[in-house]
Amino acid sequence: MSRWVFYSAPGTCALATHIALHEAGVEFDLVKLDFGANQQQSPEFLRVNPKGRVPALQTERGVLTETPALLAFVAQSFPQARLAPLDDAFAFARLQELTSYLSSTVHVAHAHKRRGARWVDDPAAEEAMRAKVPQTMTACAAFLESQIAGTWAMGEQFSVVDGYIYTVGVWMQGDGVDLTRFPKLSGLLARVAARPSAQRAIAEAA
Amino acid sequence: MSRWVFYSAPGTCALATHIALHEAGVEFDLVKLDFGANQQQSPEFLRVNPKGRVPALQTERGVLTETPALLAFVAQSFPQARLAPLDDAFAFARLQELTSYLSSTVHVAHAHKRRGARWVDDPAAEEAMRAKVPQTMTACAAFLESQIAGTWAMGEQFSVVDGYIYTVGVWMQGDGVDLTRFPKLSGLLARVAARPSAQRAIAEAA
Repeated sequence: MSRWVFYSAPGTCALATHIALHEAGVEFDLVKLDFGANQQQSPEFLRVNPKGRVPALQTERGVLTETPALLAFVAQSFPQARLAPLDDAFAFARLQELTSYLSSTVHVAHAHKRRGARWVDDPAAEEAMRAKVPQTMTACAAFLESQIAGTWAMGEQFSVVDGYIYTVGVWMQGDGVDLTRFPKLSGLLARVAARPSAQRAIAEAA
Repeated sequence: MSRWVFYSAPGTCALATHIALHEAGVEFDLVKLDFGANQQQSPEFLRVNPKGRVPALQTERGVLTETPALLAFVAQSFPQARLAPLDDAFAFARLQELTSYLSSTVHVAHAHKRRGARWVDDPAAEEAMRAKVPQTMTACAAFLESQIAGTWAMGEQFSVVDGYIYTVGVWMQGDGVDLTRFPKLSGLLARVAARPSAQRAIAEAA
C-alpha cells in the first residue's frame, strides 16, 4: 500500500492515534499543523479534513478521522500487533466503550476550557465553562480509575485505549486534577510514558 | 445465551441501539427509565450503569454502554444481519467515524440545550448555550448531508449508523434545524422511519 500520511498537532488528541501507529509498526509521514497559525482551517487542510480538526489519516483508500474510529482501524489493520481483542466482540465492545467515553465525555469536558466558543458566543459563558473544568475532569479521572482492569486498561494486554488514556491524562494534569488521588490511573500513565512507541510519538508530536 | 436486558428512556440516544437490536432480530427485555422521576440516578440503576445514563445493555457477560460501542457490538454479534461492513477494516472505520462524530459532536451539541449543567454552574451560561444550539445543530446537519453516500449513509446497504442518524435527526427537528435544506438527510430519515425495526423501536421507546 502507499505510505499513509498522519496529520497531528501538538497537545491534541491526535497523540492517541500517533502512539497506536507506532505500536503497530506502521511507517507513515507525519504532518504537524500549527494551530496557533490556524493551519487546521487552511484551504489545503480543509481539503484533507473538512472538519478542520486532527487527527486525520490519509490512507490509500481515503482519509479517516475521529480517534475511536482510527484506534479500531489501526488495531484491525495490524492484528499481529495485538492492540485490541479482535476475536471477541464483547471484549472489543468494552474497549470501544472506553474510547467512546474518552471522546464524547472526557475530551468534551476538557474542550470546555479553551474551546467554549464551539457552544456559546458569550465570553462570560466561556468563563463559566472554564471554571467547572477541574470538577468535570476530576469526575472523569475517578470514573477512569474504576475502569482500569489491570496493568493496562483492558487487563494484562496493552491496547490502543491505553495511549488514549495517556493523552487525556496529560490534559488532566493541566486541568487541575490531582492525579495522586487516582493510583491506578497514575500508574497506567507512567507505564504508557515508558513505552518506546509513546516516547517516540510524544517526541515527534511536540 | 441468557436474554439480554436493554435499558432505554424516551427521547434519548438509546433509540439508535434499540433500532439496531430489532434489525438484528435479537429477543431482549426492555426496561424504560423515567428521566422525569430521575430513575437513571436510582441506586438500582446505578448498579447497572454507574454513569446514570442510557443506553445500557445487560448481557450474559456484563453491561455495555456508549452508543458507538453498542452499535458495533450488535453488528458484530449478529453478522448475518449485515448491519456493518465487518470484513473491511476501512469501511468499518468509515462507519465508526460517523458513529463517533454523532456521539462526540452532534449529541454533545444537542445536549447543550437541556444538559448545560454538565458543563457550567451558571444559569446565564446555560441560557447562552441554549441560544447557540440551532446554529451548531444546523452545522451538524450540513456535515451529515455531505456524508450520506447513497440510499443509506454507507451506500446501498442499511447499517447501524442509519438508525443513529435517525435518532439525532428527530432531535434536529426540535432544535431549530430546517431539515428541508438537507434533502439527502431528510430522505434518509424518512426511509429509516419506514422500516419495521424502527417503527417497532419508536413505538416501544415512546
